[in-house]
Amino acid sequence: MANNTPITVAYGDGIGPEIMDATLQIIQTAGARIEIERIEVGEKVYLRGINAGIEPGAWQSLRRTRVFLKAPITTPQGGGYKSLNVTTRTMFGLYANVRPCVSYYPFVDTKHPTMDVVIIRENEEDLYTGIEYRQTHEMVESLKLISRPGSEKIIRYAFEYARSHDRKKVTCFMKDNIMKLTDGLFHRVFNEISQEYPDITNETWIVDIGSAKLADTPEAFDVIVLPNLYGDILSDIAAQVAGSVGLAGSANIGVSCAMFEAIHGSAGLLLAAVMMLVHIDQPDVATQVHNAWLRTIEDGIHTYDIYVEGVSKEKVGTKEFAKAVIARLGQQPQVLKAVSYTTSPQHEEYKSVTSKQSLEQKDLVGVDVFLDWHNGNANELGESFKQVSGDGLELVVITNRGAKVWPEGLPETFCTDHWRCRFMAPERGTTIGHEQVIELLHRVNEAGFDFIKTENLYNFDGKASYSAVQGE
Amino acid sequence: MANNTPITVAYGDGIGPEIMDATLQIIQTAGARIEIERIEVGEKVYLRGINAGIEPGAWQSLRRTRVFLKAPITTPQGGGYKSLNVTTRTMFGLYANVRPCVSYYPFVDTKHPTMDVVIIRENEEDLYTGIEYRQTHEMVESLKLISRPGSEKIIRYAFEYARSHDRKKVTCFMKDNIMKLTDGLFHRVFNEISQEYPDITNETWIVDIGSAKLADTPEAFDVIVLPNLYGDILSDIAAQVAGSVGLAGSANIGVSCAMFEAIHGSAGLLLAAVMMLVHIDQPDVATQVHNAWLRTIEDGIHTYDIYVEGVSKEKVGTKEFAKAVIARLGQQPQVLKAVSYTTSPQHEEYKSVTSKQSLEQKDLVGVDVFLDWHNGNANELGESFKQVSGDGLELVVITNRGAKVWPEGLPETFCTDHWRCRFMAPERGTTIGHEQVIELLHRVNEAGFDFIKTENLYNFDGKASYSAVQGE
Repeated sequence: MANNTPITVAYGDGIGPEIMDATLQIIQTAGARIEIERIEVGEKVYLRGINAGIEPGAWQSLRRTRVFLKAPITTPQGGGYKSLNVTTRTMFGLYANVRPCVSYYPFVDTKHPTMDVVIIRENEEDLYTGIEYRQTHEMVESLKLISRPGSEKIIRYAFEYARSHDRKKVTCFMKDNIMKLTDGLFHRVFNEISQEYPDITNETWIVDIGSAKLADTPEAFDVIVLPNLYGDILSDIAAQVAGSVGLAGSANIGVSCAMFEAIHGSAGLLLAAVMMLVHIDQPDVATQVHNAWLRTIEDGIHTYDIYVEGVSKEKVGTKEFAKAVIARLGQQPQVLKAVSYTTSPQHEEYKSVTSKQSLEQKDLVGVDVFLDWHNGNANELGESFKQVSGDGLELVVITNRGAKVWPEGLPETFCTDHWRCRFMAPERGTTIGHEQVIELLHRVNEAGFDFIKTENLYNFDGKASYSAVQGE
Repeated sequence: MANNTPITVAYGDGIGPEIMDATLQIIQTAGARIEIERIEVGEKVYLRGINAGIEPGAWQSLRRTRVFLKAPITTPQGGGYKSLNVTTRTMFGLYANVRPCVSYYPFVDTKHPTMDVVIIRENEEDLYTGIEYRQTHEMVESLKLISRPGSEKIIRYAFEYARSHDRKKVTCFMKDNIMKLTDGLFHRVFNEISQEYPDITNETWIVDIGSAKLADTPEAFDVIVLPNLYGDILSDIAAQVAGSVGLAGSANIGVSCAMFEAIHGSAGLLLAAVMMLVHIDQPDVATQVHNAWLRTIEDGIHTYDIYVEGVSKEKVGTKEFAKAVIARLGQQPQVLKAVSYTTSPQHEEYKSVTSKQSLEQKDLVGVDVFLDWHNGNANELGESFKQVSGDGLELVVITNRGAKVWPEGLPETFCTDHWRCRFMAPERGTTIGHEQVIELLHRVNEAGFDFIKTENLYNFDGKASYSAVQGE
């Protein structure tokens, strides 16, 4: 057992232990060279009063093995319990969520018989950082954050994945006709990195039209890389239209750790284990297990979740299914396409390909001060608020939900109690100092206005790096 | 012509004038009681140097008629031109985008023959307010804004629409397991308003699973109401899987104005005009035109965009198609379901059903100060930054992309140059003053740290109204 790879295994709750037993039995019979460290997570741990659902010793096991195979767990009802998945993902920097969505037609029903798409979803940022504020009676805000390193890591991973899995095309989805700065950055990084992979075709879609295309014609796609929120929606659509949502596995990949699990329900754990075997560089075992599984599906030996009268031949439980797969180890599928794994993408420490970015000159040129105000219309606000101008900063424009309302707003524009007031130097683009922002806030407060947040306006290398106002 | 309703009409660019002529000919032959004010928008106006693509006189026509029927326009290549749609939507408060997505099987090909879904998309807020900032070398931010009045207006509209169009169910999509404050508000308002419509079934779906369901089983839905971004993605999916994206019309409804147009391409203009006729309270004409159109589709008389060998009988141009529809005025479809319109929802001035909200007590209890910093690791930042604590505000926690990194962060957490530093009173929840925030910023600046933005933390009626930190 000298060359065995240690992995951390959680048997989970409910049906978890049963399917984990079956999964481990199959891969070990197939010759997986693993050494199992079993940890306890989930319901029992939560109910012991540990809010994260995992004990410190279990973290140490993950730190040591860096590989986590996880059965479904139950989070008890009631407040205060934290999602184990979110914690693991955030704390260990599992930046890539990988989900193969494959049709197994005619053995599993689908309207899209030739679909074979891999969704690679950014896993750490976007609207999922959980940064939200209610600062007025009417308005609530959530921050969407997109970073250059975050974008570089996930996009590079997608191209490396494509190369190592013999895939021909990587498609990027985003909405940079609207979100010009955030989604614009993701698009730009995609364009940059795709240049390094001339052997892989690349293309981009606006996410609305692209989603429609994916729902209707998924066979047009191969590998898809996308920001967190779009990835959340699109990966569920892809799994669903493939007809195999209950069969699919999911990998969460980071530099220092990786976690493998079923997407929904439990049947996907074996395919998650196949992804794990590829990850720990045992592609021979992964190939053998996956092909035996395909052959079992083809032979119509189905568990209850995909059993269909007339298509399936035999309805079996978890143990019988595992026996059927084991009996087919060494066999290839006859109708479905056989798999053949090589190695997984390399996970080196992140190094920005574009570190020249940090040489850009950054200059403060203004500030957006947000007010909670409900004492009249936009014009009244503008006329009374412009008194706080001075000391090299003047009120330029006021918007409400992004629409310009002062000066020269339209009376038809509906206004909430949440106002953005932009201040810049009289000569636009002139650099200002942080102390001018502080003095401005002081005057705002003295004048009796309730400032609820600020956003500094910067130029990078002389170029305005904040969105212009519609109608300005 | 005394009781004619004035409407503003733009003939648009390219094929626009041809299909607008055909559309107006059909509805006027059917007896539409309208008086047309023709305005010029689009390419010619843009090229005349008017960046909004519409002249002041044309705005006046819209103000007068409050009804806008618009053919497709061309926006010239090159910078500086503003989207006429976005301007119209924002300036006139067109808060509801309404898109019927219907299958016309077997006359138009689709995998979902019985689909009949209406998507009602919030049109003014969410991530579409265009408020974005780049404040560090690595990070870009976009604001997602969800307001109570914005949510109330669109959700109420959806229920009124369902009632007036004899629909049985309204479904709400959101993601409040992640965006607890923003999507949580939308969900809560949906629950409140649905109580006023006991005759309409209501249900909610998390947007990822709901989207998968819509893509795979659209016949499970009736009316769907959702925030702007989800609506953008889902409405394109729904139109696509219905097979009728080129045939669909779209309405943008506000209190003071409404705009009707084709979704993609041009064939949908007639159905947009049908929606307009319902809106101006001529449901008799709308019913007659729509049924004649359905009969024409049934009879296999198809324009090039839906013509399919073997299904269609005759491929015709715009004029011939219009003639065919006119010849069928007064007829009903034989296979497809005939329509029968009554009146459209009422559009009263917005009155909050929940104005009690404004009585909540709002207390400032802290501030998140965001830094641009790249001189070391999280622990080094925390230990050196906590020196700015004082005057009743102390550094509580630092996060990077939402993950807690100080105190007691994990070394595996990947950090960008964008740090959120939370300050509160030593006794948490104690009310602080705006001047304390200003003094804090002063100390931050004196200590040589680059603060890039602030977000105040408030309690409403004693309840924390900002998101907690994961791992806190």
